[in-house]
Amino acid sequence: MNRPTRVEITEVGPRDGLQAEPAFVPTATKIDLINNLIAAGVPRIEFSSFVSPRAVPQLVDVVDVFERLDRSTDTVLAALVPNAKGAVRAAECQVDEIIVFLSASESHNLKNVNRSVEESLSGFEHVAKIADHAGIPVNGAIATAFGCPFEGDVSVKQLEAIARRYQECGFSGVTLGDTTGMATPPIVQRAVRHLKEHVPELPIGLHFHNTRGIGLVNVIAGLDEGVDRYDSSFGGIGGCPFAPKATGNICTEDLIYLLHEMGIETGIDLEQLSAVACNVESVIGRDLPGQVMKAGPRLKLHSMADVATAVG
Amino acid sequence: MNRPTRVEITEVGPRDGLQAEPAFVPTATKIDLINNLIAAGVPRIEFSSFVSPRAVPQLVDVVDVFERLDRSTDTVLAALVPNAKGAVRAAECQVDEIIVFLSASESHNLKNVNRSVEESLSGFEHVAKIADHAGIPVNGAIATAFGCPFEGDVSVKQLEAIARRYQECGFSGVTLGDTTGMATPPIVQRAVRHLKEHVPELPIGLHFHNTRGIGLVNVIAGLDEGVDRYDSSFGGIGGCPFAPKATGNICTEDLIYLLHEMGIETGIDLEQLSAVACNVESVIGRDLPGQVMKAGPRLKLHSMADVATAVG
Repeated sequence: MNRPTRVEITEVGPRDGLQAEPAFVPTATKIDLINNLIAAGVPRIEFSSFVSPRAVPQLVDVVDVFERLDRSTDTVLAALVPNAKGAVRAAECQVDEIIVFLSASESHNLKNVNRSVEESLSGFEHVAKIADHAGIPVNGAIATAFGCPFEGDVSVKQLEAIARRYQECGFSGVTLGDTTGMATPPIVQRAVRHLKEHVPELPIGLHFHNTRGIGLVNVIAGLDEGVDRYDSSFGGIGGCPFAPKATGNICTEDLIYLLHEMGIETGIDLEQLSAVACNVESVIGRDLPGQVMKAGPRLKLHSMADVATAVG
Repeated sequence: MNRPTRVEITEVGPRDGLQAEPAFVPTATKIDLINNLIAAGVPRIEFSSFVSPRAVPQLVDVVDVFERLDRSTDTVLAALVPNAKGAVRAAECQVDEIIVFLSASESHNLKNVNRSVEESLSGFEHVAKIADHAGIPVNGAIATAFGCPFEGDVSVKQLEAIARRYQECGFSGVTLGDTTGMATPPIVQRAVRHLKEHVPELPIGLHFHNTRGIGLVNVIAGLDEGVDRYDSSFGGIGGCPFAPKATGNICTEDLIYLLHEMGIETGIDLEQLSAVACNVESVIGRDLPGQVMKAGPRLKLHSMADVATAVG
C-alpha cells in the first residue's frame, strides 16, 4: 500500500459551489463561511474567482471578500483566474495562490472559455509571468481530465502534454478535474500512473465530482496511487450542467470523515466543518447532498428512546 | 489484489426499501418492479417479508406478490422471516431462500425484535428445522454488525459467536448488515478477516448503508478482502431512523456501474436496472438518492448544444 498518512484538502465550495447558485450570497455571509473554514483548520481554500462580473456575477465581490479574510493562520487562500487581466487583479490583492484552468478536450474548452487548448496554454504563459513577478505560485487545473461529455474518453497523452506545458510555466502543481463525473477507479489509476511516470516533478491533485455516486471511491483509487491532494466542497455543493438532479463536487465533511476513519490526517476539525456545511445549507435554502452533516460521526450514539421503531 | 472478478448482487429494495415507505405500494406495481428486476438479470432478490401484517402493513401482500413473479430464470427469490410462524408460511410458498436476522448488539435486538440475542438464536433453530424439512436454504443476517447506534462499536468476537451458531444451524451464509451506516473500511476489513479466519466455511455477504456517504467505499474494502456478495437497493431507497435526512441502502445502479467500470461482472443490464429505479421514483413520488439513474453511464455523450453554459 502506497497510501499517504496525511492529505491536503482544498475546499472549493466558496468558488465552485457558490458560483453556480442562482441567488447572490451576500459578501458578509461569504466572509463568515470562509473564516469559519479557516478556523476549522482547512489548509487551502479556493475562496473566489477573478473572473468577469458579467460572466459570473455571483463572485463580483472577490476583492471585498479577500480583504476581510483571517490571514493569521497558515491556510492558503487561492483564487481562480481565467486570464491575464484576472491575474493582474489577483496579484494586486496578493492572494496566496493563483489557479488557472483549461479543459483537456478541445470541444469542452471551446464551450467553457471559447478558446482552443493551445490558446489557453499561451494565455497561461502570460499569467505565469505576472504571478512570478508578484511572487505568487500558480496551480494549473485540467477540467474534463477523466472524460469529456462531448468527446468521451480523454487520452493520458493529452494530460501529459498539458502537464508538461504547466511544468514549463513553472506551475506548482496540476489538478486533474473530473468536471462531469466521468472518472472511475481504473481511469484514475491510469492517469495518475502516467503523469507520475512522464512528468514526475509536478505534484498531482485530484478534483472529483459525485455525479455518478462514486466520487469517494475515486479518492480511494487516488490514495492507492499515493496522491495526497484532494478538492472537495462543503455539503457537496455544486452540480453538473449535464445531469441537473445529480450531485456535484464530492462533499468535504464526508471525505474528512472517511479519511480520519482510515487513520489519514487532514488537520481539519470535522465537527466545526459540519457546522459550516449546515450554515451553507441554510444560506442557500435547500438540502445539500452531504451525509455526515445530517447523520453525524459514527460514534454519535443515541438513546433507545430516540426512535419509536428501529428497522430490521 | 484479492478482488473477485464476479459478484452476486442481492436487490433488497422491494423489502428493505418499500417496508419503510409511508404509503402502501399496490401489489401489481410491486410485481411489475420485481419482474423487471428479474428481466434485468438481478441474480437474487429479497422480494418481501413474512412478517406480521400488523408490524409491517406495507408487505401484507407477500404471498400474492410471490405467486405472480416470473420463475422462468435462475433469479433466487428470498424472503425475510422473523420467526417460526413466518418460516411455515414461507415454506408453504416454497420460496427459494429464507433470510433470518438479529442484531449483533443486545440493545438494538431488543428494540428491533423485542428479544435477547440468545432468544433470537434459539428461534432460528426452529426456523432452520422448518426450512430444512421444506428443502429451503436459510441465510442469516446480522444487523448492526459494524456498530450499534446505542452501544457503539461491536466486537468481532460477537460476530464470530453468532456466525458459529448460524453455521451450526446449517445456514448457507452470513450477511453482515450496516444497519445505521457505521461501517468504515478498517472496520469492514477487520470483521471480514476475523470471520474468514474463525468461521471459514460460512460464505460472507455485505449489506451497506450510505448514511455517512461512504457505502461504496466500504464495498471496495469488501472487494479487497475477496467478498463477492453485496446487498443494495434500487435508487438507494431506504433510510435510517436515526438520521432522517440521510440516505439508506447503497444504490444498486451506482454499485453496478462501479463494478462494471472496474471490470467486475454482475450479469445485470445497467440500462434496464436504471429504468426500474426511475419507475420506483415515480411510484413513491419523491427523489431517490441514486446518481446513475439521473446522470446515465459515463459515455452517454452530449451535444454541445445541450447546455447553455458549461461550468469551469
